[in-house]
Amino acid sequence: MKHLLSIEQLNRADMEQLLAAAAVMKRERGRHPTKPLAGQTWALIFSKSSTRTRVSFEVGIAELGGRPMFLSAVDIQLGRGEPVKDTARVLGRMVQGAIFRTFAQRDVEEFAHYSGIPTINALTDEEHPCQILADVLTIEEKLASLAGKVVAFIGDGACNVANSWIFAAAKLGFELRIAAPQEFQPDPALLQRAGGKVVCTADLASAARGADVLYTDVWVSMGKEDESAERIKALAGYQINQTVVQLAKPGALVMHCLPAYRGKEIDDETFEANAETIFTQAENRLHAQKAILQWAVA
Amino acid sequence: MKHLLSIEQLNRADMEQLLAAAAVMKRERGRHPTKPLAGQTWALIFSKSSTRTRVSFEVGIAELGGRPMFLSAVDIQLGRGEPVKDTARVLGRMVQGAIFRTFAQRDVEEFAHYSGIPTINALTDEEHPCQILADVLTIEEKLASLAGKVVAFIGDGACNVANSWIFAAAKLGFELRIAAPQEFQPDPALLQRAGGKVVCTADLASAARGADVLYTDVWVSMGKEDESAERIKALAGYQINQTVVQLAKPGALVMHCLPAYRGKEIDDETFEANAETIFTQAENRLHAQKAILQWAVA
Amino acid sequence: MKHLLSIEQLNRADMEQLLAAAAVMKRERGRHPTKPLAGQTWALIFSKSSTRTRVSFEVGIAELGGRPMFLSAVDIQLGRGEPVKDTARVLGRMVQGAIFRTFAQRDVEEFAHYSGIPTINALTDEEHPCQILADVLTIEEKLASLAGKVVAFIGDGACNVANSWIFAAAKLGFELRIAAPQEFQPDPALLQRAGGKVVCTADLASAARGADVLYTDVWVSMGKEDESAERIKALAGYQINQTVVQLAKPGALVMHCLPAYRGKEIDDETFEANAETIFTQAENRLHAQKAILQWAVA
Repeated sequence: MKHLLSIEQLNRADMEQLLAAAAVMKRERGRHPTKPLAGQTWALIFSKSSTRTRVSFEVGIAELGGRPMFLSAVDIQLGRGEPVKDTARVLGRMVQGAIFRTFAQRDVEEFAHYSGIPTINALTDEEHPCQILADVLTIEEKLASLAGKVVAFIGDGACNVANSWIFAAAKLGFELRIAAPQEFQPDPALLQRAGGKVVCTADLASAARGADVLYTDVWVSMGKEDESAERIKALAGYQINQTVVQLAKPGALVMHCLPAYRGKEIDDETFEANAETIFTQAENRLHAQKAILQWAVA
Repeated sequence: MKHLLSIEQLNRADMEQLLAAAAVMKRERGRHPTKPLAGQTWALIFSKSSTRTRVSFEVGIAELGGRPMFLSAVDIQLGRGEPVKDTARVLGRMVQGAIFRTFAQRDVEEFAHYSGIPTINALTDEEHPCQILADVLTIEEKLASLAGKVVAFIGDGACNVANSWIFAAAKLGFELRIAAPQEFQPDPALLQRAGGKVVCTADLASAARGADVLYTDVWVSMGKEDESAERIKALAGYQINQTVVQLAKPGALVMHCLPAYRGKEIDDETFEANAETIFTQAENRLHAQKAILQWAVA
Repeated sequence: MKHLLSIEQLNRADMEQLLAAAAVMKRERGRHPTKPLAGQTWALIFSKSSTRTRVSFEVGIAELGGRPMFLSAVDIQLGRGEPVKDTARVLGRMVQGAIFRTFAQRDVEEFAHYSGIPTINALTDEEHPCQILADVLTIEEKLASLAGKVVAFIGDGACNVANSWIFAAAKLGFELRIAAPQEFQPDPALLQRAGGKVVCTADLASAARGADVLYTDVWVSMGKEDESAERIKALAGYQINQTVVQLAKPGALVMHCLPAYRGKEIDDETFEANAETIFTQAENRLHAQKAILQWAVA
């Protein structure tokens, strides 16, 4: 029984094993011979709305033989002030695994500790490990390997997705460039902990130049709506558009973990020109997470 | 792979095939030999609350071997401004079919186009095709055939249910009478497109006289609560009650697609006297929709 | 086909049969040979949020081969003023059973009457029979038998959980003591109807002294938030803590039906010292309810 709580806590061998298993899951979709979750119910505990995360986990659990049970935090006592450790102890006796999407990383870790069942971080304020595994799978499919490549993350370099990218860089041996305004640069302590080759800059052009991958994320994610105006203003110069694409390596991938706001972090032309990559990235959530589920119960 | 987007776009042969298949589904409920949706997840994307539509689709999908996944629009990014075409492209790669209940007909059509998976209109502002198929099934059960009969639709003649009835009239060869106040009369352009024998009048008595079916719908449907007072006032003379029933053919069916507001569109006595028909009509949503699902994946 | 609407309406033989079946369900979890709910969909209709009730029923239904369908009352027409008898008649034709959690006991009884399908009370303002069956199962596990024992219920003696305990006392032959402030004493008419050995007092110490079980419940349950301050003030002297535990029989069980508010009805030290019992009590909801489900369809 294993948890997936962060990229930081995942070792390189497990990461590579998960990516290989995800590719197999994708190739064999619809004819998976074994059902590792047969007879199991997995709880999806979500403090935030979601399309991709929810649907990909529900479908993945079902395709592995299990039954997903979606619980919005407001629908359960957790949203009414019950301590995480109490909810964890109750659910740990009733279900066989949990997918937890919430704010505080320590809540997911506390849940894993007290529940005694495999627990998967499906987004916290600190990390988004499932997204990064799906993204790496996508890059490996399109560019053969990520090793030695250059990934330019453009936008809020202090967000959960950026954090997970930073931890991935050292483990998988690629160069990560973060192009972000000064106030959205990554936490130095986190960069220190992560190691690896991470270049932080406020200069979008220098980050994009020669990159194999241009990657962006929504500027105003859920729960940050009250900072909307100031975030949009601060990030305004960090849009992926045709000018930026011209700086990257010819054939560079443009990636977006969705939902996309045209005219903000990406323009419509660039989004639609790269739709095949972007929606493959979304689809790969399913395959990567099926690999995680299988690994967690192994 | 087929979509069911409207009665307007459904040809007569398909409509008759669906009705015949629905009758078989009903007769064989509980011992359906094949599971055409085995291994499939179908998304139910609902922008509005629902009892009958949701439950009948969830049960129907499960009875055909599939797994329904209910997604309230507010729970997914669609309710937070994500374009329909993006949600469609994500879901199209994860699930095998979609049931969509929303406001704009063009959203359902865009979803069908971009998702590439069978898509079923479970209510829009323009049409409610599943309801009408269930209603016709009910009439055929009770009156043998709808051909040559007279259906009097009483109330808001410009609503989605009325629209679908109008398109059904030409295809199935019955006379449709719409009894509605002037401001709730059907759109002339729609009547033109539909063809068929449709008589529109503000005179309830003339519509009800000799009818085989008296049909009504809630006056203030979801999303129209702010027009409540004026709608109730305008429609006040269009209640189905014992006086109206006396005008119809002896043994005429009284139908209501629910939820019912006693004292508004129908009085309690008439509702309860016709409860068996009305709840059969509700049940037939299940059977009709199972036929639609089977047809959509064939 | 049977309903479980209250402890009051459950006879002693059925209660003992359910408890024996629940113990079997627990022992054989994960290898249940038969699937009494195979091919069935069961609706969970919840007017209030819930963790334990919802999860234990969903998992239990699935483990017995059925498909649970969770319907929040706000998601269906019931929450928009549709009469219970209409929702019941619709659902009764589509699903094979119902779990109903709501306010008025008469709504659950009306649902059972009109739906014609097995209906289980999963909490009303009057009773919480599933909780009490799980609690009795827990006591029997820990203390061999409840007959002749003393259960001290401490807190709001007029709540649904207390009511169900009162009806259980006569049927199972134990002494129930209710320690509650004057304004939270049980309804005399209910005590009369129940019979059995029930001692009501405002004196916590006399209730706790020599008790085999100290039992408490949240002071401010859902829907009573506006009375919060006055309830907390009135109940302040009725906390289970080490002082109270000292009064009880050595090795007495401390039970709590959750969610727990430390520093209110129980202190943290006492809660955590009795966590094994309390979370077993939560887990036993699952086993007791599986026994109820099997019994209801037998």
